[in-house]
Amino acid sequence: MTDKKFRQKLDLRNGRVDMTHGSGGRAMAQLIDSVFAASFDNPALAEGNDQARLSLPKGCVAFSTDSFVVSPLFFPGGDIGSLAVHGTVNDVSMSGAEPLWLSAGFIIEEGFELSQLLLIAQSMAEAARKCGVSVVTGDTKVVERGKADGVFINTSGIGIIPDGIDISVKRIKAGDAVLVSGPIGDHGVAIMSKRESLSFDTEIISDSAPLNGLVERMIASKVDIHAMRDPTRGGLATALNEMADAANVGIRLEEKDIPIRLSVKSASEVLGLDPLYIANEGRLIAFCAAKDAQKLLEAMRSHEHGAESSIIGNVVEDKRNFVEMRTTLGGRRIVDWLAGEQLPRIC
Amino acid sequence: MTDKKFRQKLDLRNGRVDMTHGSGGRAMAQLIDSVFAASFDNPALAEGNDQARLSLPKGCVAFSTDSFVVSPLFFPGGDIGSLAVHGTVNDVSMSGAEPLWLSAGFIIEEGFELSQLLLIAQSMAEAARKCGVSVVTGDTKVVERGKADGVFINTSGIGIIPDGIDISVKRIKAGDAVLVSGPIGDHGVAIMSKRESLSFDTEIISDSAPLNGLVERMIASKVDIHAMRDPTRGGLATALNEMADAANVGIRLEEKDIPIRLSVKSASEVLGLDPLYIANEGRLIAFCAAKDAQKLLEAMRSHEHGAESSIIGNVVEDKRNFVEMRTTLGGRRIVDWLAGEQLPRIC
Repeated sequence: MTDKKFRQKLDLRNGRVDMTHGSGGRAMAQLIDSVFAASFDNPALAEGNDQARLSLPKGCVAFSTDSFVVSPLFFPGGDIGSLAVHGTVNDVSMSGAEPLWLSAGFIIEEGFELSQLLLIAQSMAEAARKCGVSVVTGDTKVVERGKADGVFINTSGIGIIPDGIDISVKRIKAGDAVLVSGPIGDHGVAIMSKRESLSFDTEIISDSAPLNGLVERMIASKVDIHAMRDPTRGGLATALNEMADAANVGIRLEEKDIPIRLSVKSASEVLGLDPLYIANEGRLIAFCAAKDAQKLLEAMRSHEHGAESSIIGNVVEDKRNFVEMRTTLGGRRIVDWLAGEQLPRIC
Repeated sequence: MTDKKFRQKLDLRNGRVDMTHGSGGRAMAQLIDSVFAASFDNPALAEGNDQARLSLPKGCVAFSTDSFVVSPLFFPGGDIGSLAVHGTVNDVSMSGAEPLWLSAGFIIEEGFELSQLLLIAQSMAEAARKCGVSVVTGDTKVVERGKADGVFINTSGIGIIPDGIDISVKRIKAGDAVLVSGPIGDHGVAIMSKRESLSFDTEIISDSAPLNGLVERMIASKVDIHAMRDPTRGGLATALNEMADAANVGIRLEEKDIPIRLSVKSASEVLGLDPLYIANEGRLIAFCAAKDAQKLLEAMRSHEHGAESSIIGNVVEDKRNFVEMRTTLGGRRIVDWLAGEQLPRIC
């Protein structure tokens, strides 16, 4: 953004963010230059304007935003930086779009260590490179000690929806199959384990991952995908309830078909949580006509982030918009919305 | 976003935000539905996906982001909601783009009054309507009491740059004239007066305003505008230093030509502040060839948000990239970058 002449003045090893880093003056220019511009280096950002000017390929656009307030900032399998990239890349991808550009807005608490901020920025930059997106514009604010919690990050994303693709909750209809791209609950349990200092025989790693490659593979299969969503806060159960509600249908699940790792199951029991409601950050739910489900499943399984995909249920007519599950014991259970607060600050 | 069946359950008069409103379940759906969807109502948002799908007119795109942490949340002439709309609309407009769409990401402190949140959302919605933009996608996070300060808002914006328009700091060159669209310092002084409970003979009102209409008028004048910027944090002085730096030029200002209200001058003296470094939220700086300056000035003055525009200086060759000002007393003064923290939490 600004000239290199500022770069060496910031003590990135032992320094801390102070209020001058947010006041719009030289200290802010130093911070942006040393930490953000150095990490996110790309031509649009380097132009040094307060907005990125981008040349857009022809097509419809997907636009999404997400703020990240995860606690702790670093967890098994990721950190707030990579999570902030994956989260918005995934929200954009769920429309079938190819994500291209991200914005990054930082709200930093006074006293935050510059070395940690740099780690986070570098993690974002690496995640962006891996997804094939660029962080093209940004903003930095600093608030007084006790008025934030380390760092909060907002990312917004723009992607291009290929011609002929129409993926939206409104297209879900009775007869559709419901697929999930892998085991659920890993992210939430990884965060909670870290927060509660629990240790299990096998460490549980967040599933935080970009899903744009998997979505590209699914679209290449030529199956008419009706809807997709990544079940983050509130987990699989809440995402399915939202979708049933928006499409005015019911959903019937088969418990035996829902992939959950044994370690996640055990940890959930210890923590008193239901894996159906635990956040995921690298999983997607997809809906398509039942006749296409096997083909879509194969396409999903052929990708590293969909290797453990499964068909978990189907859509029925139901004016009550209930999500019901046939349990492994043969009973039926209503899978309701998450009612209270299960896991705060999970993303 | 979600069904109307939730809407009546939230106590918008006496209720407060709690952690369940951020956990992804039914309470969050109620909050989004009652406060945000009800305020920002538009087709893209109503589709109920985690991203907006938008049909883009042909052209280049401008993309910008800004987080707002202003304190206090309500101030003379505006509030964090209208400010969050104007701020990003203005950043997008500074490329010459017509802003079309905004995202809105809320980070809310547990315990925040729902009635205040609704006021803020309604203020955002009204500001968006006045600017002709739509809030098409959003996100809500809730953090524990003491981990934020009421509410923080991130907005990101997308606009379309008309064909043939190339407005960028890199185009500034020696011989250019420098124009400003009105009196400087109003916003920062309005905030500080409120914070310090100072009262003056005439109340000082923030200049917070959308600049897209003014920019449209300027572009319609057919003058080849080289660069624009809205001098927010750090004020006129810092914006000009950033631009001189990015374009590798020097800038010479005439103090007598820089419009500053008498009330702002007096208040600045009381507060020990220099108006050149005080934030503005409804002003822009423009650069064009000297021969075009009068024509651009007239176009600016013909618009309500540019009625008090002025030509304040010119661009010179200067490898040191100094901004210098000839004072009203005939002396010369270096107008340096804002070095420390003048006004934190101003936007």
